Amino acid sequence: MSMTRRDFIQSLGAVAGVEAVYRTMQALGLSGAGEAHAAMIDLPPGSGRGKSVVILGAGISGMTAAYELSKAGYDCTILEATGRAGGRNLTVRGGDVIEETGGRQRVDFDRGDHLYVNLGPARIPYHHRALLGYCKEFGVELEVFTNDNRAALFHNRERFGGKPLTARQVTTDTRGYIAELLAKAVNAGALDSELTGEDKERILEMLVRYGGLDPDRLYKGSSRGGYRGERIHAGLKAGEVNSPLDLSELLKADFWQYKLHFSQFLNQNPTLFQPTGGMDAVVRAFEQRVRPLIRYNSPVKEIRKTSAGVRVVTGREAVDADFAVCTIPAPVLKDIPNDFSPETRAVIESIKFVSAVKVAFQSRRFWEEDHAIYGGISWTDQDITQIWYPPYGYHRDKGILVGAYIWDEEPGLRFSAMTPAERLRAAAAEGERIHPGYTAEMETGVSRAWLNAPFQKGGWPGDRHASPEALQKPDGAIHFAGDQVTGLPGWQEGAVLAAHLAVNAIHERVTAR
Amino acid sequence: MSMTRRDFIQSLGAVAGVEAVYRTMQALGLSGAGEAHAAMIDLPPGSGRGKSVVILGAGISGMTAAYELSKAGYDCTILEATGRAGGRNLTVRGGDVIEETGGRQRVDFDRGDHLYVNLGPARIPYHHRALLGYCKEFGVELEVFTNDNRAALFHNRERFGGKPLTARQVTTDTRGYIAELLAKAVNAGALDSELTGEDKERILEMLVRYGGLDPDRLYKGSSRGGYRGERIHAGLKAGEVNSPLDLSELLKADFWQYKLHFSQFLNQNPTLFQPTGGMDAVVRAFEQRVRPLIRYNSPVKEIRKTSAGVRVVTGREAVDADFAVCTIPAPVLKDIPNDFSPETRAVIESIKFVSAVKVAFQSRRFWEEDHAIYGGISWTDQDITQIWYPPYGYHRDKGILVGAYIWDEEPGLRFSAMTPAERLRAAAAEGERIHPGYTAEMETGVSRAWLNAPFQKGGWPGDRHASPEALQKPDGAIHFAGDQVTGLPGWQEGAVLAAHLAVNAIHERVTAR
Repeated sequence: MSMTRRDFIQSLGAVAGVEAVYRTMQALGLSGAGEAHAAMIDLPPGSGRGKSVVILGAGISGMTAAYELSKAGYDCTILEATGRAGGRNLTVRGGDVIEETGGRQRVDFDRGDHLYVNLGPARIPYHHRALLGYCKEFGVELEVFTNDNRAALFHNRERFGGKPLTARQVTTDTRGYIAELLAKAVNAGALDSELTGEDKERILEMLVRYGGLDPDRLYKGSSRGGYRGERIHAGLKAGEVNSPLDLSELLKADFWQYKLHFSQFLNQNPTLFQPTGGMDAVVRAFEQRVRPLIRYNSPVKEIRKTSAGVRVVTGREAVDADFAVCTIPAPVLKDIPNDFSPETRAVIESIKFVSAVKVAFQSRRFWEEDHAIYGGISWTDQDITQIWYPPYGYHRDKGILVGAYIWDEEPGLRFSAMTPAERLRAAAAEGERIHPGYTAEMETGVSRAWLNAPFQKGGWPGDRHASPEALQKPDGAIHFAGDQVTGLPGWQEGAVLAAHLAVNAIHERVTAR
Repeated sequence: MSMTRRDFIQSLGAVAGVEAVYRTMQALGLSGAGEAHAAMIDLPPGSGRGKSVVILGAGISGMTAAYELSKAGYDCTILEATGRAGGRNLTVRGGDVIEETGGRQRVDFDRGDHLYVNLGPARIPYHHRALLGYCKEFGVELEVFTNDNRAALFHNRERFGGKPLTARQVTTDTRGYIAELLAKAVNAGALDSELTGEDKERILEMLVRYGGLDPDRLYKGSSRGGYRGERIHAGLKAGEVNSPLDLSELLKADFWQYKLHFSQFLNQNPTLFQPTGGMDAVVRAFEQRVRPLIRYNSPVKEIRKTSAGVRVVTGREAVDADFAVCTIPAPVLKDIPNDFSPETRAVIESIKFVSAVKVAFQSRRFWEEDHAIYGGISWTDQDITQIWYPPYGYHRDKGILVGAYIWDEEPGLRFSAMTPAERLRAAAAEGERIHPGYTAEMETGVSRAWLNAPFQKGGWPGDRHASPEALQKPDGAIHFAGDQVTGLPGWQEGAVLAAHLAVNAIHERVTAR
């Protein structure tokens, strides 16, 4: 009997552990970007029969685990603390209610398929292939999400007289100055020890193209940054290009610290997607397949190890199972009485979540009508950090604009401490500095301070916590999942990959017995 | 009686000419990017009553002119040489026929709302507000067009062993090397005469961020360029980033000449749009409104000045009118017997069109399935120049890929001289070097050599022709339009703006009488 590649991997898994299986599958091209589907999980049908798994949390990670395990015959129960599935994947529309400790908001948006906002995750990068695989498998329709719009604005209260600048100008001028300066240095021989004569010649030519330099290799503005006047493009006859921004002022602004190259980051690179009609299309697709397994409004009160596996106690019942997959966010999990090992507890304690806040307003699409801004993000040094112009519903009368997306600790805590009404006022006042007349355009608004979200207590694991991979190993019969245990904190792809890891690990334990 | 701003402008127009009106409207914010509609044209209803205009060509420019003039009461006739409206705005689907001198192709694509290709214009930049205004007015639904996809490829037969490289790596490494070199030069004091001490400090910090440099300000690769292995992203645990590409080899490749910064060009900047379902949605929207005015299959044989205005002779009839708006492409127009002034003739003769060619294939969406490429453009130094992955129909089984988009003269002429079957073979063979197995994936294909398109004879005015603005002035009663008379050759926005210019000029003449 010949051994298939998958047999080989599974035999490897029995001796080397799940991580090795994962890496081997990757190396053999059986998983990863090479496949637009969730094929890394392909448990033999019926292989889980007679085994039970209790899954804590009906977010993306928990539902992924339940979907895959139940396909293989496992008896799954999902305990969900709230009345809805999805966890941090939260899209709101007119009529919805947003619950927070210390406040309840009714969403007053008009009704319309484009009048929604994703208060949690909002983008899916092209290389998040496990999640994209489910979108394909489930028929979730996708459209492009725009991070980088050259019509959007950069704003710093202290610089350029506090006047917002267009991204096309800031980007073009930054490239221009960098190219001019490097060309001067190369030409002066300052890099002769780094570059061959041939390299030098080519790099000089390259810099002219890179920066849009003039024949003397000086940067004097470029049509890439747009023409003077309202028309921007060349129109009937190309006019004058904008004068370059002052270099010293550009260096004093905070644009370059990360805002200016935000879309260079791997997870912010184009192509990015969003499900048409709202990110919760992903939630609905999973929920539709696992709904009978979910016990809503069942917050976990205790997590116990038993001789047979695990016992999870809610306000209503005690669920015994052979295994658990726990996706409860660390800031919540740390306070639930449990039998975890001291090591596990220490890791959970160490995971700090970001105080992320989003504010969203309904308004006339003045950004399109008046400023030719279609989607994308404006940046400011104010607390609101960003304004997102909806990359959907183009040319409709109204839209839902993200008027603040905050993740830095201090402004995050400031906004989290405000009432919903205070947040709207504060966000509108800051938006006013970027778009004069802004406040008057706003018809209604909502906010989400994730710190105050019951059973979440934060947006996602921040940068500075201890190695989360420690939670990729089970503690007894309890496996951990959620984006918090992966190298992709805050991304649904992390939630899915963590679920796959837990599912594979449980499968290995069951089939190795 | 108070004078409105529009009154003021119109009074100005009577003395200063249309160009002045245009500039003034722009300055007053009555046109341009500030308005997402075609409001710069707003002729008083009935103001053209009793006056006739013959419009040559039912492309975007001709139909725009007819739409606006007939709204104002002008008696318009459009003479269209072919059996269809739209001109170079050409979308094809299964069952269509592509006519060229020397060949007729039947399009064999499967039927499906995503199985089409735009063989002419395919993108609408965010600042092409006159065209976008019509899209809004007519309810043409838009979706995002993707130029810049970091998963797409750069390929040079001579460099990197002829292996295609991902855009994310080429982009990241180029930025990294530029930043490292400039940091070294700044640090060595080579730019002390250019930068203050404060600037120097900031620019060094900026370069670390710009290029993703290490703490020693050296570029050693960056997660922005992706992680090793198939997964690309950090996954469960961030692995190693890709090693930087060799700098000398990068400088020897032709990527940086323009391919690498293509999306920096003003008309290629994000956000870009395409009408959902095909660019000819724009054609249909205009045609629906002016269809009764169009005489199809009426190629123009003569253009004559008369004492009353103009006479245009087709194979069937002679049409007399007070004015003409002539949008016939220069390479065709120059051979039509006419009464133009010697100056007009010289300008028309000087306008050379580009030998643009597109080849399109139907295939399995292997680019998505196997390579995580969703939309965007791969570049090669071969004749085909580009491969476009369709930025629509994501995750469907099949798609129409643009297998060649050529505009350089030599390859354009080479492909134009081939039979349609030869073009498919040539394009597939070149695509094979970028995507091994490519040829076997291709099910059927079509091509368009615009040089061979009857009544077009080329793609768009190339870079080197004489000032086209000379044709913005009428020759007697004959006004010229089309993208060819503007600073936006090859763009539908140019076609629309030229039509507006002609319409405004005719209006001024009529109301000044």
